[in-house]
Amino acid sequence: MITEVAKIIRGLSVDAIEKANSGHPGLPLGCADIGAVLFGEVLKYDPEKPDWLNRDRFVLSAGHGSIMLYVLLHLSGYAITLEDIKNFRQVGSITPGHPEYGLTPGVEATTGPLGQGFANGVGMALAERILAQKYNKEDFDIINHYTYVLASDGCMMEGITSEAASLAGHWGLEKLVVVYDKNQVSLSGSTELTFTESVADRFRAYNWQVIDKVNGHDIDEIRTALMKAKEKNGKPVLIIAETHIGYGAPTKQDSYTSHGAPLGSEEVTGLKKKLGLPLDKTFYISDTVREYFQVKKSNLLKERQQWEEKYSRWSEKYPEERAQLQKALNLEIPEKMDFWALDIDEKIATRSASGEILNNAAEEVPYLVGGSADLDPSTMTYLSKFSEIQKGCYNGRNIRFGVREHAMGAICSGLSLHKGLRPFCSTFLVFSDYMRPALRLAALMRLPVIFIFTHDSVYVGEDGPTHQPIEQLESLRIIPGLQVIRPADSDEVKAAWQHILGKKEGPVALILSRQKLSLLKKSLGIKEFSRGGYIIYEGDQNPQVIISASGSEVQTALQVKDILERDSITCRIISIPDRETFASQDWQYREYVLNNKQSLQVAIEAATGQGWYEVIPGLSLGIFIRQFAESGPGEEVAAQFGFEPEKIANTIKARYKAKKD
Amino acid sequence: MITEVAKIIRGLSVDAIEKANSGHPGLPLGCADIGAVLFGEVLKYDPEKPDWLNRDRFVLSAGHGSIMLYVLLHLSGYAITLEDIKNFRQVGSITPGHPEYGLTPGVEATTGPLGQGFANGVGMALAERILAQKYNKEDFDIINHYTYVLASDGCMMEGITSEAASLAGHWGLEKLVVVYDKNQVSLSGSTELTFTESVADRFRAYNWQVIDKVNGHDIDEIRTALMKAKEKNGKPVLIIAETHIGYGAPTKQDSYTSHGAPLGSEEVTGLKKKLGLPLDKTFYISDTVREYFQVKKSNLLKERQQWEEKYSRWSEKYPEERAQLQKALNLEIPEKMDFWALDIDEKIATRSASGEILNNAAEEVPYLVGGSADLDPSTMTYLSKFSEIQKGCYNGRNIRFGVREHAMGAICSGLSLHKGLRPFCSTFLVFSDYMRPALRLAALMRLPVIFIFTHDSVYVGEDGPTHQPIEQLESLRIIPGLQVIRPADSDEVKAAWQHILGKKEGPVALILSRQKLSLLKKSLGIKEFSRGGYIIYEGDQNPQVIISASGSEVQTALQVKDILERDSITCRIISIPDRETFASQDWQYREYVLNNKQSLQVAIEAATGQGWYEVIPGLSLGIFIRQFAESGPGEEVAAQFGFEPEKIANTIKARYKAKKD
Repeated sequence: MITEVAKIIRGLSVDAIEKANSGHPGLPLGCADIGAVLFGEVLKYDPEKPDWLNRDRFVLSAGHGSIMLYVLLHLSGYAITLEDIKNFRQVGSITPGHPEYGLTPGVEATTGPLGQGFANGVGMALAERILAQKYNKEDFDIINHYTYVLASDGCMMEGITSEAASLAGHWGLEKLVVVYDKNQVSLSGSTELTFTESVADRFRAYNWQVIDKVNGHDIDEIRTALMKAKEKNGKPVLIIAETHIGYGAPTKQDSYTSHGAPLGSEEVTGLKKKLGLPLDKTFYISDTVREYFQVKKSNLLKERQQWEEKYSRWSEKYPEERAQLQKALNLEIPEKMDFWALDIDEKIATRSASGEILNNAAEEVPYLVGGSADLDPSTMTYLSKFSEIQKGCYNGRNIRFGVREHAMGAICSGLSLHKGLRPFCSTFLVFSDYMRPALRLAALMRLPVIFIFTHDSVYVGEDGPTHQPIEQLESLRIIPGLQVIRPADSDEVKAAWQHILGKKEGPVALILSRQKLSLLKKSLGIKEFSRGGYIIYEGDQNPQVIISASGSEVQTALQVKDILERDSITCRIISIPDRETFASQDWQYREYVLNNKQSLQVAIEAATGQGWYEVIPGLSLGIFIRQFAESGPGEEVAAQFGFEPEKIANTIKARYKAKKD
Repeated sequence: MITEVAKIIRGLSVDAIEKANSGHPGLPLGCADIGAVLFGEVLKYDPEKPDWLNRDRFVLSAGHGSIMLYVLLHLSGYAITLEDIKNFRQVGSITPGHPEYGLTPGVEATTGPLGQGFANGVGMALAERILAQKYNKEDFDIINHYTYVLASDGCMMEGITSEAASLAGHWGLEKLVVVYDKNQVSLSGSTELTFTESVADRFRAYNWQVIDKVNGHDIDEIRTALMKAKEKNGKPVLIIAETHIGYGAPTKQDSYTSHGAPLGSEEVTGLKKKLGLPLDKTFYISDTVREYFQVKKSNLLKERQQWEEKYSRWSEKYPEERAQLQKALNLEIPEKMDFWALDIDEKIATRSASGEILNNAAEEVPYLVGGSADLDPSTMTYLSKFSEIQKGCYNGRNIRFGVREHAMGAICSGLSLHKGLRPFCSTFLVFSDYMRPALRLAALMRLPVIFIFTHDSVYVGEDGPTHQPIEQLESLRIIPGLQVIRPADSDEVKAAWQHILGKKEGPVALILSRQKLSLLKKSLGIKEFSRGGYIIYEGDQNPQVIISASGSEVQTALQVKDILERDSITCRIISIPDRETFASQDWQYREYVLNNKQSLQVAIEAATGQGWYEVIPGLSLGIFIRQFAESGPGEEVAAQFGFEPEKIANTIKARYKAKKD
């Protein structure tokens, strides 16, 4: 039967690709047997309830093979119709070119950029271990599922996979099973041309169990390997399935030409002939396959119902845990959680203020977990009252990601995708570059991951230009759907955290200073903060100069103001911790804040700052840093690049005078 | 003697860090013995001629240990004074927090962001192989040097290292020697907490020779390992040196507290006592060590002079090769290289036009080498008349990087740092995110690497939002020193390549379309192009509407213009292939082009486009794409997001009417 299923997968996949005249037939043809065994026999799921907490997760890391996933979901009974399959890769369809989380029922992660899904899978498998240890009781294993990943040669080459695999081995994620589709052909040729390492040995070095040399077209071998993968020995499992890309295509099998372009009608006919599929039909599904999955579906439903019963009994017996889990799944926060009462030093780096608040929040929000890429003593993100998540003891709250920023980002997305945890992670702002593809996918998936980036400007100082962010702040602000917040003092940090913990959708990047900053003593409310920007100092209702700034430069602006006022130039200072949110406010509010009258508009930011010109209409003086700076004490470096109150005041005075004349 | 050298390194390093009150003592103390053997015995260099072509390269991938490198360079006789050492991490000094290429003689690469130097080293070692095969003759081995890299635990964890190591093994770079400083302590704790893989087995899996368990504090063991590393067997060599971080510090040895902060005077005193260094002196160098390096220097000078003689004889015997090498070292291009004559289809994707030009250029510029991250059939970067660089045959011109964007970027920087080659590399624009740290470092080092990014907008189409760049174009434009060029048609591609090949400093990102674009038939000169932007259509000297655009949107703008003119609205269209260069032109030129009169200023770009508001003063209508789009045929997707001439024209008309009223 599984052989028959695989045949149907192949037929449907190529038909959909031909109809779209776009797509990747290589993987669906090569992996149809693996897909058939997984969805036809191995995976535990309920197509009627795609978000069932205890379902097995399946991530197609090689996202270009999306059509195979859609076909499998359709056959399994998910809410994907044959019509949807026929609309593959069309505007408005739920069957896009690469799988998109949130768009298609049963798709567990948005994949396509290679290696990301692999790391997401590691995150999901880690989440399972954490939640299992947290909620399972001797008599109830309510969290008890596997995470399967299908990865390609391309995934295996990407650095993010290496990072994530090393962590999965370190953590001993024994319920993670990765099937590696080793077809030895990549987009542009044989992998022999660029990929001759031993993946098996590499993964053994990462402390994985490797089941090697599985014939990816032999149903029994695939089945046996997947059974064996469930024998627990404290290690994640890599199944190396040797397949033929474009399997069954008469002339294109084993060639890179089958990877990413439609086969063409002749080749499709040849394929169908070879497989014994009816030549006069497209999108053909045999009755036996339909029936097989119908029976399967009702069996799976029973399994889920048994779990629901168990869950009810668990809920009754452990009402506190149940309440906690429900809150975690809904990302509920305590009604009265409030950081305003926290007593924080008046002069403190925003990274340190954030650390205090985060530690406080961790006590109130038990589903908050996270860590750093080996920088917690600097990013201040260690939860000092809690233990660490390590192999065998998953009930900690601190995650040590090592110097692996990219995997850190994608693993946090995996934790978030799993549901039941709220992940945060941290590194220096300049190293956000290392995890950018993961950041983008978190934004695309609208996952509420918290990214904490400290050491946010040239004020980093001595570490020099490799460690001083210049373009990073702007480059994060322009990722669609990533909210970027750069607080000016500890009060703004409090407001930021209050906002972040209440936000249930979409990632946030919290940008924090290395250097100490004074409390601005503006009685700030979360409401004011939620506007993205607000007047923090008003010297005159119609000021001659208006200075907008974010983060540490708000303090600079206030110092500049003192100098200007000494020369009888009236000022208004605007703190804009979240520029994009400010820009999205109604025009009345923006006009009220920005006062589009005769004032000289100035913006100060120790970074590239291109986007300020759009947000502040009539901005006539942007004081930014647009070149790499140098190594030295932070204040001196900044001064070297014009960031000194006196210098800035002089520049403004000169411009103001020129404007007046 | 080497033991004595190591002692001096340790003393000088901690003194410099104490004086700066900033720095990383852990590595210099832990690796002083390795550093002493390398610079005191193994490396071939001439401190008087730091750019000697055939010197051994040494890259400190763990750049935070910079002070050790400065001390070694000082002792070896490079132009770094003791005063410079005393100015460690100060503004204006040549001894910055992390090593900076171009600033300090003897520093081969800017390092600090972990893993980058490792990959740079792979590039340098590959360059050596390529040049050796190209220029060495049976009787002359003028290119014959080693590349040494010192890497940390952190380097080993980074994904970029995995990618680069896999390639180095694949290419069989037997003259690459990496010393891995395995101190098992990272910034925030023991590596046991997050890094328990077997690095030795992993590197064996990559086809490396691994010399394991070398005592990093035993001079003989280090020496023996480095000797053994030179026994050629077709594999790069990893020496795993077990060291103690902060070696010699009385209480901080083997603790992460010695990693990144000054030891403090008490600890320094204890250290000096333990090592037998004079307690009453700082920055102490013994006479014996001074003398040792003086003798060493004169011996090294002889070695270099012998090479110079050999080089002269080679030059005489092989004048053509000599001329070619000189041109390659100076990045000279043929005087009459001119792509205008190339016959290119009138309707062609800019990626395809670029491919034709690149193939043409490759014949004229023999030092041009490069490839793609497994996408050459799509990025059109395969040099069809040339062979591939593979293990044992390094005389090809095509490099297959596999799906390893990050290593690709840093390896190209390594090729460029080596000198003698001009590297290019390519992937889809959206995947520039994967290599962003490498791009940034290429810009910081001002290396003339050519980055080719194709599939540059939502017009990518069916592959969907994971493959459609939105924020990438802007995010590249704001990297300081990275020139971003997005041509509108094949003529602009010709001009771009003409410019790129003549540019000797600083990286370029060439942004190309997937879809076909028509030739705009503006007789464009390289001079006009070099302004960054120019008037491509002039309907009226004082037009009512001025539309600025780049790349494929210039064509959209011209279509919009047709519609507007039908309604008697006069237009000017400006093509701005290089916005930052345009912005840097004198105000007269910008005013001439932009006509800051009464015209309605419009900018069109199928991307986020924030920066246009600064470049076009008074920009009142920005037509951009600021959200993730979707999967479907390119034109349809774009239309969905408002990118259709008719829609755009209507928006402009409405705004124009509002402005007039």
